[in-house]
Amino acid sequence: MLITFLTDFGLEDDFVGTCHGVMKRIAPEVEIIDITHGIQPQSILQGALVLANTLPYLPEGVHLAVVDPGVGGDRREVAFRGKDGRLYVGPDNGLLLPAAEKLGGIEAAHEITNREYALEPVSATFHGRDIFSPAAAHLARGVDIAELGPGVEPDSLARLEVPRPEVGERRIRACCLYVDRFGNMQLNLTRSDLQRLGAEPGTQVELELASDRYYAVAARTFTDARDGEIILYEDAYENIAIAISGGSAAETFSARPGVDVRITLVD
Amino acid sequence: MLITFLTDFGLEDDFVGTCHGVMKRIAPEVEIIDITHGIQPQSILQGALVLANTLPYLPEGVHLAVVDPGVGGDRREVAFRGKDGRLYVGPDNGLLLPAAEKLGGIEAAHEITNREYALEPVSATFHGRDIFSPAAAHLARGVDIAELGPGVEPDSLARLEVPRPEVGERRIRACCLYVDRFGNMQLNLTRSDLQRLGAEPGTQVELELASDRYYAVAARTFTDARDGEIILYEDAYENIAIAISGGSAAETFSARPGVDVRITLVD
Amino acid sequence: MLITFLTDFGLEDDFVGTCHGVMKRIAPEVEIIDITHGIQPQSILQGALVLANTLPYLPEGVHLAVVDPGVGGDRREVAFRGKDGRLYVGPDNGLLLPAAEKLGGIEAAHEITNREYALEPVSATFHGRDIFSPAAAHLARGVDIAELGPGVEPDSLARLEVPRPEVGERRIRACCLYVDRFGNMQLNLTRSDLQRLGAEPGTQVELELASDRYYAVAARTFTDARDGEIILYEDAYENIAIAISGGSAAETFSARPGVDVRITLVD
Repeated sequence: MLITFLTDFGLEDDFVGTCHGVMKRIAPEVEIIDITHGIQPQSILQGALVLANTLPYLPEGVHLAVVDPGVGGDRREVAFRGKDGRLYVGPDNGLLLPAAEKLGGIEAAHEITNREYALEPVSATFHGRDIFSPAAAHLARGVDIAELGPGVEPDSLARLEVPRPEVGERRIRACCLYVDRFGNMQLNLTRSDLQRLGAEPGTQVELELASDRYYAVAARTFTDARDGEIILYEDAYENIAIAISGGSAAETFSARPGVDVRITLVD
Repeated sequence: MLITFLTDFGLEDDFVGTCHGVMKRIAPEVEIIDITHGIQPQSILQGALVLANTLPYLPEGVHLAVVDPGVGGDRREVAFRGKDGRLYVGPDNGLLLPAAEKLGGIEAAHEITNREYALEPVSATFHGRDIFSPAAAHLARGVDIAELGPGVEPDSLARLEVPRPEVGERRIRACCLYVDRFGNMQLNLTRSDLQRLGAEPGTQVELELASDRYYAVAARTFTDARDGEIILYEDAYENIAIAISGGSAAETFSARPGVDVRITLVD
Repeated sequence: MLITFLTDFGLEDDFVGTCHGVMKRIAPEVEIIDITHGIQPQSILQGALVLANTLPYLPEGVHLAVVDPGVGGDRREVAFRGKDGRLYVGPDNGLLLPAAEKLGGIEAAHEITNREYALEPVSATFHGRDIFSPAAAHLARGVDIAELGPGVEPDSLARLEVPRPEVGERRIRACCLYVDRFGNMQLNLTRSDLQRLGAEPGTQVELELASDRYYAVAARTFTDARDGEIILYEDAYENIAIAISGGSAAETFSARPGVDVRITLVD
């Protein structure tokens, strides 16, 4: 069984490499796929959204994720099994739940308390290395999830609030969830939200960002627009995103996750 | 057969990890070597040069590369087989050709049109995930290149223009192709260009960058120069490059790819 | 036998991928674990500290490390075997020694001079690719370390000076060794240094950084402090570090490795 691995550790430090080492010492045969370690430091919401977006494209396995501002505090360490057999390991802070629910929901959840499956000693600040990586590696080797600790009610697991858009008749108030390397701004909108507004490919809309207004056009892809044109398009994870053809929307708008975006239909 | 993988996706987002996942679902046994994902966003030329530089050092396999500003537009998706048996997969925008030609040329090329070897549905903006990664994984498993779609004339493949230097009797006009992490500036020059100018290790030259002039010395390696000295040296890929011993040339000169560099022999 | 790999190459360029390729051509079965390639360019000290911190968590194997400002100069290329059987490959500039000594010391050291185990030709500036990666791959395949070249006295190996703190009765003068992605500042101090000062979890201290003074509290972990509070804590590698709960210490203090930090007990 392979392990997929997502964190906010970045690749500048040794954190990711050290966790790989810990897993490989416990499970020398296991294969590890790094989804990304570029989640914004301590952004649980971004980590949860990326995990839910990507997991359907990844082989089934043990899905290890660590974005853990509460490390060393009283948030629990948890592992759970999805109804489709996938296993999840990480902090109980909402990070894993959207992915597991998208893939059919949770069958059984356990708190990780059994120190036989952790490194000794457990540090106060690096549970990725000392608790989560060992747990994932032991699960990948076939240890039963119930060995890790007592069962917990799936309903008791921490849950994130995902910001919802306000979709009116002629106007949407959304927010930017994510900015990618190409400067594309993913919004908390889907195609059906735009359709309720009446926007189809080719429709012109007005965007309001940080009190500035811009014209944009709904488009299928970048090459449907002229260079420099602002487009609204459905990205590869079925979110509506803002891009500038041949440029960077995030740079042009100085946009960051959390920024308010208003979309108004133009007559 | 293994897969090598080069893109401009960066490692901050999930794009690379997701493509790994897609390939591993199709070809669980395949090994993937990441050449780099740090190509400047949408810089086809840089991607092509790095691929041509590095492929001779990599095991033969399926060479997947994606730098694809035209995704979703009318550029073709292609796969081809080199005369030495290597396989190439990527957009038909010139990215793959310099590497394949350096390694002996192309034996057969095919457009990738067969949707049996793609994910379903194919998004408009992430063909790396939906078309190229699946095609590479199927080839690595032994699918014949002709299964992917109809043959195309190798001569019809898109070709990049690589900027050529002007080499005069006492003066060269070159440009910066690439800046690396250490601030070394790779030029579109080889040792033979410098030799035509009469510059050998130890020769002093004048550099002109952005209207400023500097003295530099041709040297074999960094440690042949005093700290702070500007050197011209043949880098590990046999290009002439500019470095500052113990410093960063790119920072000192605020240099970026595309910048003009003039080199004049000093009497 | 697997290979662990640590460098200052970064992941933007192809350097790491090319070395992977070189190793895989020589030893197709070998597994490579990347510890990190984010060591600050040419910071031998940081590389040495990270290697010594992390190696105990990694499987035993061939430990390849390259941070090599003297490449092409007269520093030697070396390989050595630790008393516990681990093998080390890299430049003789002090990079490998702290790790090897932490893990029991060196049994035998050899200069790498045998060009049968190098690429041909050897470039002047990329020994990571041309000498060190091939040597590591051959060792991983079972080549004896003595095949690489003549034995050298372990005592003759280059040794780094690690900055030592001054620990007085009421005051410590330390320095920042390392800043991580989360902005935590690792100091050249251990818990016993703080204990000699009389600082236990809960003790308040005064920090002096760049002539500015701040109150801080010794704490076990981030969640023991209020948001915005400055804490001194023992990090996961048993160094004392400075953090800001819910923030970035390095950003707040504009701190970089090498910065002076004074810690005074508050009555």
